[in-house]
Amino acid sequence: MTINYHKEIMTSHPWTFFLLLFKWKGSIWKAVYMETIIFLIFYGIISVIYKTALGESSQRTFEAVVRYFDKRLSYIPLEFVLGFFVTTVVNRWTKLYQTIGFIDNVGLMANCYIRGATEKARIYRRNIMRYCELVQVLVFRDMSMRTRRRFPTMETIVAAGFMNKHELELYNSYDTKYNSKLGTKYWIPANWALCMTNKARKDGYIESDYFKAQMEAEIRTWRTNIEWVCNYDWVPLPLMYPQLVCLAVNLYFLVSIVARQLVVEKHKIVDEVDVYFPVMTFLQFIFYMGWLKVIDVMLNPFGEDDDDFETNALIDRNITMGLMIADNPMTTPDLRKDPFYDE
Amino acid sequence: MTINYHKEIMTSHPWTFFLLLFKWKGSIWKAVYMETIIFLIFYGIISVIYKTALGESSQRTFEAVVRYFDKRLSYIPLEFVLGFFVTTVVNRWTKLYQTIGFIDNVGLMANCYIRGATEKARIYRRNIMRYCELVQVLVFRDMSMRTRRRFPTMETIVAAGFMNKHELELYNSYDTKYNSKLGTKYWIPANWALCMTNKARKDGYIESDYFKAQMEAEIRTWRTNIEWVCNYDWVPLPLMYPQLVCLAVNLYFLVSIVARQLVVEKHKIVDEVDVYFPVMTFLQFIFYMGWLKVIDVMLNPFGEDDDDFETNALIDRNITMGLMIADNPMTTPDLRKDPFYDE
Amino acid sequence: MTINYHKEIMTSHPWTFFLLLFKWKGSIWKAVYMETIIFLIFYGIISVIYKTALGESSQRTFEAVVRYFDKRLSYIPLEFVLGFFVTTVVNRWTKLYQTIGFIDNVGLMANCYIRGATEKARIYRRNIMRYCELVQVLVFRDMSMRTRRRFPTMETIVAAGFMNKHELELYNSYDTKYNSKLGTKYWIPANWALCMTNKARKDGYIESDYFKAQMEAEIRTWRTNIEWVCNYDWVPLPLMYPQLVCLAVNLYFLVSIVARQLVVEKHKIVDEVDVYFPVMTFLQFIFYMGWLKVIDVMLNPFGEDDDDFETNALIDRNITMGLMIADNPMTTPDLRKDPFYDE
Amino acid sequence: MTINYHKEIMTSHPWTFFLLLFKWKGSIWKAVYMETIIFLIFYGIISVIYKTALGESSQRTFEAVVRYFDKRLSYIPLEFVLGFFVTTVVNRWTKLYQTIGFIDNVGLMANCYIRGATEKARIYRRNIMRYCELVQVLVFRDMSMRTRRRFPTMETIVAAGFMNKHELELYNSYDTKYNSKLGTKYWIPANWALCMTNKARKDGYIESDYFKAQMEAEIRTWRTNIEWVCNYDWVPLPLMYPQLVCLAVNLYFLVSIVARQLVVEKHKIVDEVDVYFPVMTFLQFIFYMGWLKVIDVMLNPFGEDDDDFETNALIDRNITMGLMIADNPMTTPDLRKDPFYDE
Amino acid sequence: MTINYHKEIMTSHPWTFFLLLFKWKGSIWKAVYMETIIFLIFYGIISVIYKTALGESSQRTFEAVVRYFDKRLSYIPLEFVLGFFVTTVVNRWTKLYQTIGFIDNVGLMANCYIRGATEKARIYRRNIMRYCELVQVLVFRDMSMRTRRRFPTMETIVAAGFMNKHELELYNSYDTKYNSKLGTKYWIPANWALCMTNKARKDGYIESDYFKAQMEAEIRTWRTNIEWVCNYDWVPLPLMYPQLVCLAVNLYFLVSIVARQLVVEKHKIVDEVDVYFPVMTFLQFIFYMGWLKVIDVMLNPFGEDDDDFETNALIDRNITMGLMIADNPMTTPDLRKDPFYDE
Repeated sequence: MTINYHKEIMTSHPWTFFLLLFKWKGSIWKAVYMETIIFLIFYGIISVIYKTALGESSQRTFEAVVRYFDKRLSYIPLEFVLGFFVTTVVNRWTKLYQTIGFIDNVGLMANCYIRGATEKARIYRRNIMRYCELVQVLVFRDMSMRTRRRFPTMETIVAAGFMNKHELELYNSYDTKYNSKLGTKYWIPANWALCMTNKARKDGYIESDYFKAQMEAEIRTWRTNIEWVCNYDWVPLPLMYPQLVCLAVNLYFLVSIVARQLVVEKHKIVDEVDVYFPVMTFLQFIFYMGWLKVIDVMLNPFGEDDDDFETNALIDRNITMGLMIADNPMTTPDLRKDPFYDE
Repeated sequence: MTINYHKEIMTSHPWTFFLLLFKWKGSIWKAVYMETIIFLIFYGIISVIYKTALGESSQRTFEAVVRYFDKRLSYIPLEFVLGFFVTTVVNRWTKLYQTIGFIDNVGLMANCYIRGATEKARIYRRNIMRYCELVQVLVFRDMSMRTRRRFPTMETIVAAGFMNKHELELYNSYDTKYNSKLGTKYWIPANWALCMTNKARKDGYIESDYFKAQMEAEIRTWRTNIEWVCNYDWVPLPLMYPQLVCLAVNLYFLVSIVARQLVVEKHKIVDEVDVYFPVMTFLQFIFYMGWLKVIDVMLNPFGEDDDDFETNALIDRNITMGLMIADNPMTTPDLRKDPFYDE
Repeated sequence: MTINYHKEIMTSHPWTFFLLLFKWKGSIWKAVYMETIIFLIFYGIISVIYKTALGESSQRTFEAVVRYFDKRLSYIPLEFVLGFFVTTVVNRWTKLYQTIGFIDNVGLMANCYIRGATEKARIYRRNIMRYCELVQVLVFRDMSMRTRRRFPTMETIVAAGFMNKHELELYNSYDTKYNSKLGTKYWIPANWALCMTNKARKDGYIESDYFKAQMEAEIRTWRTNIEWVCNYDWVPLPLMYPQLVCLAVNLYFLVSIVARQLVVEKHKIVDEVDVYFPVMTFLQFIFYMGWLKVIDVMLNPFGEDDDDFETNALIDRNITMGLMIADNPMTTPDLRKDPFYDE
Repeated sequence: MTINYHKEIMTSHPWTFFLLLFKWKGSIWKAVYMETIIFLIFYGIISVIYKTALGESSQRTFEAVVRYFDKRLSYIPLEFVLGFFVTTVVNRWTKLYQTIGFIDNVGLMANCYIRGATEKARIYRRNIMRYCELVQVLVFRDMSMRTRRRFPTMETIVAAGFMNKHELELYNSYDTKYNSKLGTKYWIPANWALCMTNKARKDGYIESDYFKAQMEAEIRTWRTNIEWVCNYDWVPLPLMYPQLVCLAVNLYFLVSIVARQLVVEKHKIVDEVDVYFPVMTFLQFIFYMGWLKVIDVMLNPFGEDDDDFETNALIDRNITMGLMIADNPMTTPDLRKDPFYDE
Repeated sequence: MTINYHKEIMTSHPWTFFLLLFKWKGSIWKAVYMETIIFLIFYGIISVIYKTALGESSQRTFEAVVRYFDKRLSYIPLEFVLGFFVTTVVNRWTKLYQTIGFIDNVGLMANCYIRGATEKARIYRRNIMRYCELVQVLVFRDMSMRTRRRFPTMETIVAAGFMNKHELELYNSYDTKYNSKLGTKYWIPANWALCMTNKARKDGYIESDYFKAQMEAEIRTWRTNIEWVCNYDWVPLPLMYPQLVCLAVNLYFLVSIVARQLVVEKHKIVDEVDVYFPVMTFLQFIFYMGWLKVIDVMLNPFGEDDDDFETNALIDRNITMGLMIADNPMTTPDLRKDPFYDE
């Protein structure tokens, strides 16, 4: 479930934004607590070994090693690579969301152009809506684990009512004729929807060729949007880029396990306290690892993270909305004067 | 109320931009003064304890602690995470504003295509405008506290004249038939507006099918824009990202309360003055907390901050403009030669 | 007047870009010279007081104060907040320019669709152009001081020939009926233009309904663009953001007046020269204050800065171009073979 | 082959992103291992010479040289130039991908508008699809080594079935008449597709002029997209920009070979250990060189890197999909009530 | 000539990107070598004066001056202002390229809608293409030195065959009637093209009003794109912004001439070598000056730099392509089955 927090930051009080920190679901805390624990354990082990197990001269050597790494930790500029990459990923995420598909327009246009309260007109409209939604279901099944788990086989789609038996048979019949590896089959229900439009025109439910073309344009827009969800998945950002970012953050903190050890040297003025717990490194770890997690979540929003797109809820919304709209093509209020009307 | 300052920076004088600083409403001062006071109080308490309540050796330890934190404060690069995040938020804010909905085009197109000065033509046009505006009212009620407070119930919408009684009855009748949890009902008035267009065509007020389709396309554009206001609200930026930014700023200044204490060490040359009041930390606090407030305000512009979108004013403007335009379809000046006309 | 320098940087020589520095109009020099002088005067006063008026121990204290501020000046990262904000402002400025309105397309489409060299056809075309331009004039009057000064009253618009007397009367008649506070009246001339198109169709100057719709779409595009100029002005970037940037720069240099004083300490090796004039701080001041001025100029490009949009010149250009185009609908060369034509 | 890793990062576990690091194909490791080895060899040679071959005073001089360079290494801010350039390159890469061409819409629109299950209608549709795909094949041959190697001559295109013999003859006949240097010939198959549409209209397979125009608009969109792939290739980002970035990274590490030598000075307290292997410089090298490689791969995605666009697979997909869609214009399921249908 | 290097970076080898550095044409080397030499000469003069001409105490003072400047050189953050500005400039450059105008679509649409292989149909198509191209020629003459030099007068345009004599006469006749200062005359050939379309419709070469409107829409798109090339030139980025960037880079290196002098102080441990040649400053100079040159080249791409848009080549390409396409409206292959066709 996408975590919605807009209501809570509606008005800016001193504490509004602050309160966001106390959420757990979809939070940065939930995302990084495991990594943080692992990091602290390793840090602790090294620390204990240094303080108890090493001899005097080994300690001196260890301290030199710590200084060596600490001084050079800044070689890897985490803030830059994370800042620029996160911007790229947010742009991609936004574009994905814009093409993810809300069916309302298809429904309203079906109402506009396929007129009539007769049963057949209603079936036409409902079938077109269902076929459109079917495109989304098929694509989401391939992108999202959630939807895949909901519809493990084509039969489950039939069982859920998105498809009729005879439609599935027709759908499957395409397999034998073409190499199904290369081509995808997402276009089939879209083609059905377009054919239905054509039939509706022949049957006189659509009143003019121009209206038919507008209806088809609406279906085309819907399909094109969903195709781009698919295409974006086919060609992700080159693997090297997320690898680079991931590598940088992980290496940084791997080196930090040593570099951030607090070495108290005997021959220097004790101008720092041994705090036993590496407070600031701990905070820094949460900060950078959290930033990496933001990227992780947004890079593929079709997963099962708390903040990923709710594909199943969207499918349910679309089929409900789509059919509801398709059933009410002409229920408009009587034509009366409005309250502001003055003669 | 959105704070408009464009008039004041029209022409760049040495002082124009500077004068912006002396505004209070919607200002950074108003946004951060409370946080600043709290911060300073905590800072002061620690400072007083250090200087008066601690013994000699505790003071030395405290000074070591201060040095420890001060040296590591730069681990969290506030400027980067704020800079990149604010850019993302501004982009989203701009996109939201572009889809928020100004009704003029619907009105002008209604004038173009639904011709006639007769009463019935006027009612058609006015109803279409009102239904379009109703979509906006319904959506804004769910997004904005201000609009919700203005229209707490559907009845208040009727009372305000945006809806007729018989329309509300029809609107409510949809509830019983469908699961209203999943689907939203924003589409209903849009559907009405489309149906009205259809009726107007049947009654001959629209002269051709093509004009009808253009009118419907205009209504579709209006509804789609407002739907995106809704959709952007449904899926905010993943919670982790604002959390991360908020965390960074708050942690930074939490640590600063200790790290920025001025410790005057006896055994060092006094090359710095004890200024008693942490001037620079204070300025830095205002700066970064202000930056965070900019994000806070822009992340959800449908709240009640001084600078949030004025949803109620926009609704008033749209209904006034919409009806005014719809009432003047044909009042065009006589066709005369213009002053520049030469034979 | 917008300063055009493209011609001068056409080809890159070692000196081309360098020569840009010697411009005065619209230059960074002109923008910041006053601030720089004020800054230097304050700096000088402090400097003189420190060197002449203070006693020995006061001097030591002052030097400590200087060191205190100098060390903490980096708390405010000017370069980040300026860099990110300027990018946001440039994007907004570019979008504004893209919607500012060049009338050529309206004119050419009027020629395409309202055919005929008769006087009446010509008047139709000219009136549509004039009404379109009138929208721009009315909007610019509210945005730009320059245009406001040129057209202080509606009568001056009539005097300038953009409006006929009988049109102004009609325009004013709207006032009495509606609350003119909420609604703007920019839509009126656009409505006239649309009505004229309708009349021209009725009179047979437009040959088909489809052409009429295309003509109306062109007028709609024109009006929508100009409306966005208006809308962008209605909701500026939240006041806090420019305030923040302005605050940061001004505070930085306020503190600099003290922090950048050159304190020559007696007990240290003199490894720096007292240059009397703070060269580098002076350069830095010009640099950052100049960056702020870039933002200042671009944030509201409808002012009277050297580099703001030339609204009056644009209005003149549009009315001249628009009428010129409208007068030449059919003057096309005879149909002859072109020089490259081979049989 | 584009490396797809979306499946693996679907859900964020502590290890998901981490596991990305263990990929080889298309990885950063594969991209930089050779450079890294070369860098280390040079570093090693210098190191050995310094420690063994140099006399005492030469060693001192060398150490001074090392210090000289080490201190000044920060003059070149790699992180900035890489961060900003990579953003520019990613934007360009994204735009290229968006215009690369998926044929489904052309196919579905052909089904919509060129109706009929007769053999001739089928041939019309198939030919239009084939001609459209031919545009892509011709353009990709000029952009991508992979496609060029697959289709070294026009004859191989014929052999692969994308073109008929008589079509190739016609295609070649254009050569003699025009200077083929300046013009490209990509437009020819697009022209054929448009002419086919025209013929299909004349033969009555397209039912109205409006449908014909829509079909042509679809072909136009397809061709325009592919033309932009071409245009982007014609005018790359100015050579200087990638040169600058490449120069910066290479110079930085060239200087690093000397500057990062660990010089153990006798007269200083040994507060650092000689680690023999320059761990941190090695990590930094991988990081920055990897960043450069990301740019390298994305700057021209039509090459043969692991992560470049799979032009051949796309061509196969398009021809398969295109013909498959064109063969099923009317196979739509019977009109039946859907499972959700309630009376 | 635009330098194309895409072929050379098709596949990423360790050396591919590296080899880019050895190009001269359009390279960063060619762009900055002159500036670099001048910089080094000044640096050398100062260096020689310091080492030979100054007395002992003058040398001490000079060294103090050097230290003073060196310490404060970081006041001007070149990397930020260059990074943000170059992004803005690249965006503008990309938008310019996207509107620069490739004529293929106009040609193909002319083929679609102005049917017939008769001489007159051909002349219609060719004239429309030529008039469209003429718009581009006229605009490019005003933007680009190259094109201006190619067509110094209107007569040379006639001589080059882009215009007929009688067309020039008509073109010039507009001058007398209107104030030609304010208006541009680029619209005239576009108007001719639109009128030609109208004539072609009257003569029956265009089969329906809808086709005529589509043809006109195509011409409108072409003209609008080219108009934006013009508009972007009319209002450049405010002069202050490039001035600021230029100022920053030049000042930085002006100060560097002194600040980067290597001062070897007698009383300090010689821990740095005098390298005589300022290697790192030299590299830094190339880097930043090169970055500035990238901006210089991209800010006005209509100049004569190696990497500027090749306006003349584009004009030649467009006229050749345009006429070639216009001559082949109906040469489509016979309708035959494709090789993949199975019954």
